[in-house]
Amino acid sequence: MSIKLGLLGYGNLARGIESAIRQNPDLELSVVFTRRDPASIHLHTEQVPVVSIEDVLQWQGKLDVLMLCGGSATDLPVQTPEYAKYFNVIDSFDTHPRIPEHFAAVDQAASKSGHLAMISGGWDPGLFSVARIYSESVLPQGRHYTFWGKGVSQGHSDAARRVEGVKDARSYTIPVDEAMERVRAGAHPDFTAREMHKREVFVVLEEGADPAKVEQEIKTMPNYYADYDVTVHFISEEEMQREHAELPHGGFVIRSGNTGLNGEHHELVEFGLTLDSNPEFTGSVLAAYARAVYRLGKEGKTGCITVFDVAPKYLNPKSAEEQRHTLL
Amino acid sequence: MSIKLGLLGYGNLARGIESAIRQNPDLELSVVFTRRDPASIHLHTEQVPVVSIEDVLQWQGKLDVLMLCGGSATDLPVQTPEYAKYFNVIDSFDTHPRIPEHFAAVDQAASKSGHLAMISGGWDPGLFSVARIYSESVLPQGRHYTFWGKGVSQGHSDAARRVEGVKDARSYTIPVDEAMERVRAGAHPDFTAREMHKREVFVVLEEGADPAKVEQEIKTMPNYYADYDVTVHFISEEEMQREHAELPHGGFVIRSGNTGLNGEHHELVEFGLTLDSNPEFTGSVLAAYARAVYRLGKEGKTGCITVFDVAPKYLNPKSAEEQRHTLL
Repeated sequence: MSIKLGLLGYGNLARGIESAIRQNPDLELSVVFTRRDPASIHLHTEQVPVVSIEDVLQWQGKLDVLMLCGGSATDLPVQTPEYAKYFNVIDSFDTHPRIPEHFAAVDQAASKSGHLAMISGGWDPGLFSVARIYSESVLPQGRHYTFWGKGVSQGHSDAARRVEGVKDARSYTIPVDEAMERVRAGAHPDFTAREMHKREVFVVLEEGADPAKVEQEIKTMPNYYADYDVTVHFISEEEMQREHAELPHGGFVIRSGNTGLNGEHHELVEFGLTLDSNPEFTGSVLAAYARAVYRLGKEGKTGCITVFDVAPKYLNPKSAEEQRHTLL
Repeated sequence: MSIKLGLLGYGNLARGIESAIRQNPDLELSVVFTRRDPASIHLHTEQVPVVSIEDVLQWQGKLDVLMLCGGSATDLPVQTPEYAKYFNVIDSFDTHPRIPEHFAAVDQAASKSGHLAMISGGWDPGLFSVARIYSESVLPQGRHYTFWGKGVSQGHSDAARRVEGVKDARSYTIPVDEAMERVRAGAHPDFTAREMHKREVFVVLEEGADPAKVEQEIKTMPNYYADYDVTVHFISEEEMQREHAELPHGGFVIRSGNTGLNGEHHELVEFGLTLDSNPEFTGSVLAAYARAVYRLGKEGKTGCITVFDVAPKYLNPKSAEEQRHTLL
């Protein structure tokens, strides 16, 4: 009997989860809920109903886990506590500073209803958080650094698109090689934002727009670009579609620490991701954690959890014996 | 109140654990047990008793976790089930094919006595196993490869030392760069042993020994060297002491997988260690897992566990709130 999953929303992330479910024989996509007209949505998986969000409560008792695929800015702060009243849920809430309040709201709802809710799944927060906690735990005398990229930053792309004269834009975050090498060599520097990452923006101009003015406006945009070394490239709409349609991403969590009676030995722990498709990989991580939510829920666990609360065995479909035999 | 740890044995690994304990304020070294004359052993930590192994049972109820620092060949198969009768224990049993029988013996003893026993802590098995299970779970359509080195292989060094005419030897395992690059590039080849690792041996000859004969004998030694490309260097005793006294090690777990409806996107997950001191890093991992054994034992868990059963939160001394705040 497979684990019955529902998706709330059907954007990039939900489609990534859908394709991940298809790679896992023990997982089953049971339903997709949408705020749009259900008839307008065509899934890749046959025979799975698309249902209006208004009818979601009719699915109580029919789903093992409801996977919330909305955005962290406005969707999830409302949806996760709300649906934790009725279902085991999982989300990919990624606004770091707001995690404590989100956790508290979700924990209250899920504890009260007797459901299990996991927040902040994915790869950062998610697998990168896992890398940070393992490496800090084994190397307490040390420091960790998180580098992102090379990858598309949706937030920075959106910001560049809001500049007057910009028809389309795609913004890449790129880690600075020299910074990574310094960390790997055992230095524990305090980097500025500029020293760790640079940005590269590909822009399609509106007809008649002034490239110099657009470039200047992007490069000086506070919060998004002003603190980084930024390169702006002007390209055609065709090149944008041909070369920048994918959503690659990745990065590195590097912990550099010292062991020995006097810290005389240097130890380096590094976790890296190189992803062709950010939403598909994020969806794959969420699919594995949905399995864990189902299993932990079966064991009677309720309330809100994060990746830190999930033992690795719950993520993997193999039996404990098989895990020890093939993976230990 | 700190977590009271005992060490059984006082070799390289135990000294690595000792220095790790000194970096963790919540951990305390309470006692070291030895088969040698206790008076012959001098710890780096003051005021900690060294006690004959014969008196270990007098410490029942006084230790939170007994850490077994013996070898996998003959010590641990006997010691871990034996001491799980009286203490929560942890070991670094690393003979992969014998893990099922070791697990069964330890599980039976610990379940019966109501203690918690963790086997196979360290980095492989240990953190590398963790990397394998996480990456397989999130990328089921894929394959993982484990590369070791560059590092000292104690077993291969010992084997070379047994060759006639060899006074001392140090053997390094080195991953083959081209193999790692092929995996990173998305290939899923079936490698031979020779294609993944090479070996480099530094030898001090006995006076009058024939270098050509020694080199030939090492290179053709079955199980240890015959399946690898091996380079043998003859060096002086002084150079051996100056250049090869340390025990560096490390390696990489690389999982290369595919996502998407038709597996059209390539995703790479990589976990790497670069260690100046293998025993100190292994000791650091075991110290963090000893904390987890203590905490899980407090929660009432009994029987045998491995790294797969331990949620990351148990490894880290911070509170759950602080973990989410600083590491998520």
